Amino acid sequence: MKYSRRSVDAPAAGGQASGRESTAATFQGMSMGVPRRTSRDIRSDSRLDVLHAVLSAGETTRNEIAQATGLSPATVVTIVGELLAGGIVEETKSTPGRIGRPTATVSMSTERTRVVGIDVAETYIRAVLFDTALGQIASVEDARDEHDLDPDAVVEGIGRTIDRLLAENEVPREDVLGVGVALPGLIHGPTGVSIVVPHWTWHKVELDHLRERVGLPLVIENPLKSIATAELWLGRGRSCSSLVTVNLGTGVGAGIVLEGRILRGATNSAGEWGHSLLALDGRACRCGRNGCVEAYVGAPGIQLTLREIAPGHALADLDAQSDFITALAAVANGPDPDPAVLETIDRTAYYLGSALADLVAVVNPELVLLTGWTTWALGDSLVAATRRHLVAQSPGGAIVGAELDVSTVRGNSVATGVAMIVLERFLADAGLVTTSIPVAL
Amino acid sequence: MKYSRRSVDAPAAGGQASGRESTAATFQGMSMGVPRRTSRDIRSDSRLDVLHAVLSAGETTRNEIAQATGLSPATVVTIVGELLAGGIVEETKSTPGRIGRPTATVSMSTERTRVVGIDVAETYIRAVLFDTALGQIASVEDARDEHDLDPDAVVEGIGRTIDRLLAENEVPREDVLGVGVALPGLIHGPTGVSIVVPHWTWHKVELDHLRERVGLPLVIENPLKSIATAELWLGRGRSCSSLVTVNLGTGVGAGIVLEGRILRGATNSAGEWGHSLLALDGRACRCGRNGCVEAYVGAPGIQLTLREIAPGHALADLDAQSDFITALAAVANGPDPDPAVLETIDRTAYYLGSALADLVAVVNPELVLLTGWTTWALGDSLVAATRRHLVAQSPGGAIVGAELDVSTVRGNSVATGVAMIVLERFLADAGLVTTSIPVAL
Repeated sequence: MKYSRRSVDAPAAGGQASGRESTAATFQGMSMGVPRRTSRDIRSDSRLDVLHAVLSAGETTRNEIAQATGLSPATVVTIVGELLAGGIVEETKSTPGRIGRPTATVSMSTERTRVVGIDVAETYIRAVLFDTALGQIASVEDARDEHDLDPDAVVEGIGRTIDRLLAENEVPREDVLGVGVALPGLIHGPTGVSIVVPHWTWHKVELDHLRERVGLPLVIENPLKSIATAELWLGRGRSCSSLVTVNLGTGVGAGIVLEGRILRGATNSAGEWGHSLLALDGRACRCGRNGCVEAYVGAPGIQLTLREIAPGHALADLDAQSDFITALAAVANGPDPDPAVLETIDRTAYYLGSALADLVAVVNPELVLLTGWTTWALGDSLVAATRRHLVAQSPGGAIVGAELDVSTVRGNSVATGVAMIVLERFLADAGLVTTSIPVAL
Repeated sequence: MKYSRRSVDAPAAGGQASGRESTAATFQGMSMGVPRRTSRDIRSDSRLDVLHAVLSAGETTRNEIAQATGLSPATVVTIVGELLAGGIVEETKSTPGRIGRPTATVSMSTERTRVVGIDVAETYIRAVLFDTALGQIASVEDARDEHDLDPDAVVEGIGRTIDRLLAENEVPREDVLGVGVALPGLIHGPTGVSIVVPHWTWHKVELDHLRERVGLPLVIENPLKSIATAELWLGRGRSCSSLVTVNLGTGVGAGIVLEGRILRGATNSAGEWGHSLLALDGRACRCGRNGCVEAYVGAPGIQLTLREIAPGHALADLDAQSDFITALAAVANGPDPDPAVLETIDRTAYYLGSALADLVAVVNPELVLLTGWTTWALGDSLVAATRRHLVAQSPGGAIVGAELDVSTVRGNSVATGVAMIVLERFLADAGLVTTSIPVAL
């Protein structure tokens, strides 16, 4: 934190610069220039605020919405009217007010529409049916061959899973407000859309194919940003404006929420913390780089740590990653824990705490939330030690006020989050919000 | 980037949560809850947009401002009127329009007020006098004993430097609109303000003392955020909404601009990239952590790299860091470059490119701008190699569209940036903007 610079008496930075043409360029694309806000954006924000208040509360009143959002009661009445007219919210009941006339209760519409969220993982495709309050109605899962990288097969798999979900639940296609698909990898948007994962790059043609096969309004997002969206709307994001969600599984990655919005970055790839460096020239990562965080705290990385500590250990040879993590947790929490297992967990906590310290130092969130199946399996034995290492490794003061915890969002938060993005997008298409959601549609 | 999770059929994330009280908490502090925008904020944003347009252009017209900001001509007329009445801008001349009546030109007021920016570094205190267009009028510099960590001595040093600057330039104190002081370290704001640098922690009492000694409206910010502010208003930020400024000197650090605003984080400590990990358990850093980026690409780190490559090298023993960097540059750019020096620069570029790849992966900016005296000294011999390593080390796709360049802001960008923050704060105090600027005032 100490800091010094040499004083250079070069020409002063004055206000005389010829920045006219560059300033004028700010209208040509969302990732160029300082975003300009118009009164239309403001209305959008207010509508999203109202929607957020209704979703958070489950059931609420116009007065409570005004309190929660800080909007004037008159504005809330107008916006709720628009959302009622659009079928987004509904009046559920009227309760007698303490003083005078009855108060109507407002909640998300659960009748009119359905939203589908799809989680495309390496070994499965899971489709979840939601109502517009994002309550889960049903879900189906189909296995996927992780070695089949043919985009056509993935597209057909997604289409088939949606068809099955709708058929089994007797949902007519016209009741579906939209489908959100979470695809692994970086999704560059909103124009030069392509999905980049190692050995798997989709361009416009594959996305057009997907859109055609699904045949319903479609949004595509990365699973990490989907998880962060779920946390923002349905988890700790309801009381906290800047947070980071960290998913621990085979791969690891982060979703960043700043001031109540997902950090997307210039090309929608912000949050690629899993492939940031933990150790220069360290372990080989499957992304091709050496020393990535994922190579240490992804499930195969944790298994490698155990092999380094105890080369012949029985658990070191387990083939399936989830079996390995489950067995590790069982031994660690059992009556007679194995020292090599305990050391593996502590070293993993050291790696994870060190890597999270970097994320906290750069982003300085209020809250870091761990999620993913490694988190659920190892639970507090990992989290408590990680918290200690995070504090010890944080550059002085960066951790002040930050908190490390386990996410409170359960279920398939990828599907939930990408369904939430469908809802945002639907409001945009209905002209109810203009906040740009840079995903492939 | 490849990614998989195990499907867990835990209870679904529904909308039924009881988030009432947490949503209601969003009003109690700027770092809690999703920020709520009011129409007052909107006006502030519009005023800042207009101000930004005027500052960027130097001289401009209401029509050009409307084009650059996307605001309606009527709104621009209103806001320019307010800024004229507040003495922030002035009408400089009227030029005949191509069609019909003459068009008035608007620029920042250069008459009414002065702004002072102070750069407190380890070995000097530099005070720069600006007009409100942030044109530099004069500056003075006083030496500082870097071993004297007594806050009273620093406070008195700052006060004396300001007194001298104003006296030498015959500026009455009542002409000074405000003073910005850039102090090294993390500045936690806006309420629990304290400045944390190793061996140097200021709390409210020291800040009150500084405020009293200066006796003028005061803002305090960290030099890295000051540099980023200067870049945002007077450099590439005029045509680019997300960028990172990276300062290379004794210490190294980053300032992050997202969507046209400085990323401050929950406790104003975002951007502490210099003390994020490059190499787990690597070189000891003066911050107490091991393996920080700064330990490799700060000037002493570069010298250590040379010592590792060529232990007995003549330059390895130079005492003053700036002399070392200057000598290194001279040899590298000379007619017969020394292989050890070239290898030192290339290895530094490898370290720097790797560390920048992490920053790009997490933040995904459009642009990374290098600044600071190491950058000026080593110039393209460092920058070109760093760019190559950055691209090679970037997780697939994260670097797409990002650019590495040298900052175009010259002069003391710390002083310029912190003076710009004074201007923003002045507009806030005048009721012209309400955008919260979380610095000590």
